[in-house]
Amino acid sequence: MNKKELISNIKSKRSFLCVGLDTDINKIPAHLLDAEDPVFEFNKKIIDSTHDLCIAYKINIAFYESRGLSGWDSLVKTLDYIPSGLFTIADAKRGDIGNTSSMYAKAFFSNMNFHSITVNPYMGSDSVTPFLEFAGKWVVLLALTSNPGALDFQKFSSNEKQLFEQVLETSKSWGSDENLMYVVGATRAHDLEKIRRIIPNHFILVPGVGAQSGSLSDVVKYGMNKDCGLIVNSSRGIIYAGSGVDFALHARKEAEKIQVEMNDLLTGLNL
Amino acid sequence: MNKKELISNIKSKRSFLCVGLDTDINKIPAHLLDAEDPVFEFNKKIIDSTHDLCIAYKINIAFYESRGLSGWDSLVKTLDYIPSGLFTIADAKRGDIGNTSSMYAKAFFSNMNFHSITVNPYMGSDSVTPFLEFAGKWVVLLALTSNPGALDFQKFSSNEKQLFEQVLETSKSWGSDENLMYVVGATRAHDLEKIRRIIPNHFILVPGVGAQSGSLSDVVKYGMNKDCGLIVNSSRGIIYAGSGVDFALHARKEAEKIQVEMNDLLTGLNL
Repeated sequence: MNKKELISNIKSKRSFLCVGLDTDINKIPAHLLDAEDPVFEFNKKIIDSTHDLCIAYKINIAFYESRGLSGWDSLVKTLDYIPSGLFTIADAKRGDIGNTSSMYAKAFFSNMNFHSITVNPYMGSDSVTPFLEFAGKWVVLLALTSNPGALDFQKFSSNEKQLFEQVLETSKSWGSDENLMYVVGATRAHDLEKIRRIIPNHFILVPGVGAQSGSLSDVVKYGMNKDCGLIVNSSRGIIYAGSGVDFALHARKEAEKIQVEMNDLLTGLNL
Repeated sequence: MNKKELISNIKSKRSFLCVGLDTDINKIPAHLLDAEDPVFEFNKKIIDSTHDLCIAYKINIAFYESRGLSGWDSLVKTLDYIPSGLFTIADAKRGDIGNTSSMYAKAFFSNMNFHSITVNPYMGSDSVTPFLEFAGKWVVLLALTSNPGALDFQKFSSNEKQLFEQVLETSKSWGSDENLMYVVGATRAHDLEKIRRIIPNHFILVPGVGAQSGSLSDVVKYGMNKDCGLIVNSSRGIIYAGSGVDFALHARKEAEKIQVEMNDLLTGLNL
């Protein structure tokens, strides 16, 4: 999916919501546990009940990898089930020396056909560029994350700037705003103003709304650009909104609440 | 495996060599391709012919993940095949917010029973500590890597220090030298002197000897401590030393060459 299609989806669906499929087999409703593949059953129902309200799904790879071969099987089935107009993100936080990053890129882009993958910048250019060599695919590079530990190193500071700013400035030339996005946590909304001066046109994936309690209106205030330029993710706040047989209905209600707010925010900015 | 056992293995085997199983199905000898699981057959023969010369095996997860379910199957069989006295490293470069890192830890420490995993420090303390909570397991945290891109951010510098030094100083309190090691590339041997002032007692995993052309004697000169404190990895230089039916013999010869050099270096330092 290219940038133009992504922007067009946002405008027509009046939403820049990404639903995070961090599906934990120990947290899904009991009645699903008899299914052949309970995680896939859960994801199917979540996708059925939310796909008209969001523009992307983010699959948190750890939750599948932790279940071994059966987890990878649930993951592949889930990815294949996502309707084709939705942007898919492998939240994998991969990154290694060049020949190894090429192998990860192959895993997620050729074998599994994700549109994008989250990548960790610590190892620098040759750990990221192998992912950018895949035509039509996206790298979503970590810049400033939502978790408390982000402050340990991402704000490590020289005289002029902090590490996350250095990451943005250096890495933006590795690709373009047509194949490179950045992760900035919703809990760092106030830093988005400074970030937008470095990358005015890139899409930013914003996790941390919901369970991690970032504010959507602050994210929009400081982070939105003329194309929207935001994909805001909520995982636990949506998928675990209910815990009974009607869990998918509760998930839909939560997603709808966010989509309605997003519609207002888009309209307020004439988008 | 605890630190005392690791040191004892190094002293008795006269080696601190780790063999890296970066096994690429496109690079293994043609006669193995008829086997049911060619990658496992290759690894089995490499392990059979090197296990008395090394003290650890590092499995590069990307090379298995890139082959989907059959790759994970080869990986699990390979790990189970490694003799019990050898230290095992999942070279996975994982790391994410707390609840997600816990899932990765479960995947590699509970489901797969690796002794250790490589972890990326960029996301800070809560992305690393879930791995440290597993008793008897090790985190191998990236500090200063061997690849050219390491210079992009790892040497980003405040007035007093560079990022990799900040990573060492901050992270060493998250665990101890009994459950935390660091990655420093052999191509950064001269930085080891400075690094040893920050972490005198921790083990350091050193990739980059061989194909990446780091120098073993420089690594020892600047990085060895009173317990040895080094695990030096070679992957491609050993496993692809030969390409015919006698590939395992060539791998053994390469491993032996390094082990002989290591024996001399250990003896020279009265270890």
